[in-house]
Parts: sequence; C-alpha cells; structure tokens
Amino acid sequence: MKFVTIKNEKGQWIGIVNDEESHVLPLQEVQEKMDSDVFIPADMVEAISLGDKFYYDAEKAVQWVKDHNLESELSVPLSFVELLAPIPRPAKNIFCVGKNYAEHAIEMGSKEDIPEHVMVFTKAPTTVTAHEQKILTHSELTEQLDYEGELAVVIGKKGKGIKREEALDYVFGYTIINDVTARDLQSKHKQFFIGKSLDTTCPMGPWIVHKSAIANPNKLDIKTTVNGEVRQDSNTENFIFPVEEVIAVLSQGMTLEPGDIIATGTPAGVGKGFKPPRFLRSDDTVEITVEGIGTLRNTMASC
Amino acid sequence: MKFVTIKNEKGQWIGIVNDEESHVLPLQEVQEKMDSDVFIPADMVEAISLGDKFYYDAEKAVQWVKDHNLESELSVPLSFVELLAPIPRPAKNIFCVGKNYAEHAIEMGSKEDIPEHVMVFTKAPTTVTAHEQKILTHSELTEQLDYEGELAVVIGKKGKGIKREEALDYVFGYTIINDVTARDLQSKHKQFFIGKSLDTTCPMGPWIVHKSAIANPNKLDIKTTVNGEVRQDSNTENFIFPVEEVIAVLSQGMTLEPGDIIATGTPAGVGKGFKPPRFLRSDDTVEITVEGIGTLRNTMASC
Repeated sequence: MKFVTIKNEKGQWIGIVNDEESHVLPLQEVQEKMDSDVFIPADMVEAISLGDKFYYDAEKAVQWVKDHNLESELSVPLSFVELLAPIPRPAKNIFCVGKNYAEHAIEMGSKEDIPEHVMVFTKAPTTVTAHEQKILTHSELTEQLDYEGELAVVIGKKGKGIKREEALDYVFGYTIINDVTARDLQSKHKQFFIGKSLDTTCPMGPWIVHKSAIANPNKLDIKTTVNGEVRQDSNTENFIFPVEEVIAVLSQGMTLEPGDIIATGTPAGVGKGFKPPRFLRSDDTVEITVEGIGTLRNTMASC
Repeated sequence: MKFVTIKNEKGQWIGIVNDEESHVLPLQEVQEKMDSDVFIPADMVEAISLGDKFYYDAEKAVQWVKDHNLESELSVPLSFVELLAPIPRPAKNIFCVGKNYAEHAIEMGSKEDIPEHVMVFTKAPTTVTAHEQKILTHSELTEQLDYEGELAVVIGKKGKGIKREEALDYVFGYTIINDVTARDLQSKHKQFFIGKSLDTTCPMGPWIVHKSAIANPNKLDIKTTVNGEVRQDSNTENFIFPVEEVIAVLSQGMTLEPGDIIATGTPAGVGKGFKPPRFLRSDDTVEITVEGIGTLRNTMASC
C-alpha cells in the first residue's frame, strides 16, 4: 500500500493511492462511513505510532470500500489532490547517511573518502517539502545547489540496541528523498548541517510504500534525472552499509522512534562529481525514481 | 523570570521559580484561580510560540499571586518538585555550535582547528534529560564520555534571514546545556552526530531565564566542575562567534522557530583536553554554572 498525506480545505488527511497510481482514497472519509472500530488519525506519525493496527485498519478500510462498490464515489483523482510530504513535519531532524555508495565517495574526493564506519548528519524538519513543490535556489547564499537521490526508510516502532537481523521489523515503509545540498556551504561550515538545511531542500515522497511491498530494500534500482537527462543510475545493492546495518548503528545508543526518517545516502552522479560541475539552476526539474516506490519530481524556483 | 517545566500526577506544567530559587509557582494552578484572560499552556514550546503574551501573562499571574497574598498557599518548595528539562521534548534536533572558543579548538587539536566560519551539528531530541537526572555511561559503546558546559539560547519567534543587529529580538531566553559527547564515537563516525546523540547526553536546565534578565549573553561567566573540581572556567566574551552571529548564520537560509535551542559551544577544559584525558565515570557529578542563569547538575550512572 502507498500512503500519502493530502491537504484540502478540511485540513490534513491520510490517503491510500491505488495500484494504478491514478486515485487517492482519503481514509478519514472512509472511516466516517464505516461502522467499525477502524481508527486512522489524520497525522502520519501519529498513525505509524499505532503500530501494525494502522496498516491493518487501512487494509480493512480499502477492502470495505471495494466490498461496498464505493471506489468511484470516494476516490479522488491524484491530479486533483494537493499532496504534502508523506510526513510533512518530522518530529526531529532527518537522519542522513553520508557516502554510503563507494563510487559517490570517490567522486566527492578519492578512495580515501570511502567510509569505514557509518557516517550520519541531519537535515532540519523545516527543509521538508512535497512532490511537485518548488525547491528554492537560495541564490543569495549558494551557487552550488546539488541534487542527491536517496531511498529513505521510515521507522515503524520504538527501539534501541536493535540487532541487524531484527532491524527490518522496525521499519514501517520506504519513501524517496532528494537530499538537496549547498556544496559551497557544506565545505565552508565543515560539519554538513548548514549546507544540508536550507528551507525546501528536502523534497520527500510522493508517498510511503509499506514494507510488505518491498522484498529487499538493499536491491532496488535508483535513478535521478535532471531535465530528463540521467545523472544517477545505480542500485541500492551498492550500499556500503545496508539498511539493517544503518538501523543497528544508529540505534546502538540512541532510541529510534515511529516516524523517524533515515535517508540512506546517494549514488555516484551528483552535480559536483562532473567536470566541470553541473549544479542546479532555476527551472531545472529533478526526478528521482526508486524501484517499487515511484518518482519524486521537483522543479527549482528562484528566490 | 525563571521558567521551569515540572511534572506531577496531573501531568506537565510550567512554573516560575522565585528569586531565592526556593519555590516554584505552578502557572496553571494560578490561572485556574484568576478571573482574567491570562492563558498559559502546559507545554513550554507552545507557550513560547504565543510570543510576548506568554511573558506578560506569566508576569500578571505572579503579580496576582502577590496582590492576593497567595504565595505560601500556591508555591511549592523546589525540593518537592520533579523538574523536567525546561523543553523536555524539542520539536527538532538541538543546534550545537562546534569549537566556538579558540582555546577549546586548540585543546581538541591545534590552532589550525580554530574555525573561520560557524560550524553546526545537532543532537537528537531523544538526548534531552533534566537537571538532577542521571547521565547514562553507555559503557558498552564508549570509554570516552566527556562533558561540555554550554550556554544555550532558546528562540522566541520565527525568523529567516535575521540580521545580526536584530538577532536578540528573536531570543526568548537562555538555559544551560551539557553537550555530553562520546569522543571515540565522534571521531570514528567522522560527522559529529552519532557521538553527540546517545540517550541522556543532553542535560538541559534547570530553567530558562527570560532574556530581559540577561543584559548581554556574550559576557557571562561559565564554569564546569566534576566532583567539585573546576575543569572549565571561562566567559562567553571568549566566543569566536557571538550569539547574534550564530543566529544570523543559522537563519540565513533556514527558518528558525519558537522553542528552537542553540547550544553555543564549550570553553577549554573538556576531559579530552587533559593529558592523560579525564573522561566521565559512573557516579561522577558534573555541575555547570552560567552567570545569571544557575547551576545544572547531573550524576553519571552505569547502564
């Protein structure tokens, strides 16, 4: 199932996108009509915090709609819906793994830059923006805004000291993140945070795919295009640290919580890796496609 | 005024500590008795988000208690109260300035380590703990847990592109943070985040002092003791980047929000700076005193 957060005049809702990716079923409207104990909060983090009940209730709601032939009445065409990021306002910074593909580490420096241990930095929650929303160029601050297509993991339950072999039990699902980075600020301020946290530099979405639909997060094609030209084309099997390892290392002394988001790192092909570098400019469109999830698309806008 | 977050069987409350630091006035109890438009939420970030009204309402409440001679009836001895961190659960990671005192940069390496630009990393909200609560040793993960006494700034209103000369208008108040750091993890994982984000490694408090009580945040004595022995003894006038500069740089492309917390960096004298290094051990007590604010005290506990 594909979970979206949508916005309309009544506020924020959780919806389910159909297999054809043409329509959204707003879950709150369904549960209002159902006479059952199905309860789905409007907020994605709150819903994920309910544990497996959320997923099963969502399944029940979809089945009920099918059973009552209400799909055409209750579903809304995706093109009519305003999507927010699936988690529009994370409850903490987004965890980001640095240099998790060897070829990317090399393009950013040399073989010496391939990490021996998981490297993590963060992006502020204020960076988050939705599929199809603008990424601001911040042209007064940076001339080197760069894309980074990434698989992102959404944590489903609280855990600390999580073992590698149990790590995927702690996952709710997967989404896509563009870890947009101001390369000049990243190097000027040494620690990555400032160059990674400009407003709108974390497009996320379009939806969260439940983990049951992803057999192995460490074997997914991942591709980034800019204005249709392929820039990044890899597979998560090239991770230096697979998802299970990242979760284990992060949680060794820090409690992970439902709704936490981990961006797993970007493959080779970022703008900075080209000679000369090819940074993002106003009106550029970046599309990131991850196998089994979908495509996250955003266009640059001057500011 | 000194604002605390306290906990009792009814939940979480905001309180005001008296000048003698002997008693707490729980604001919610006062507003229940007052017949006025004073409204103070139970949650500190929510309260700060109300802007100046929160401060003025708190002043009105304190005045009303004095006018009605209800201090002895409504105040609770501080020793009877369970203090939480003044912001027990920040809405995003805590911003931390790295190497903001030249002598500390030198003790961590050499003169080459004195930064030319503001360096920022973050600590997860799950690190936060209160005055008098235990700091866990995480002895299975680290042998090099270290203290860092710091002045922390609490942001009072939303802003982006904040100018240096207006930066203090965006401050609500000040508190103290112990930016406890696992030095071995900090260097092993390159980016600081993992070594800075073990659970309980961000003692905060005991309270937030409103900015009106602090004439100049860049001229405050700051002292850290371990088991009574002075380890850090400096003044914030030694900041490389004063508070105004930090706020300006952080907000240049990232929106700051009410309740955001900025730890301003630590002076020389951390455990790693000694030869041989003097890291924290179980039962050690760390006290950090900042002029005009108070003393934050925590003891180490095995885990």
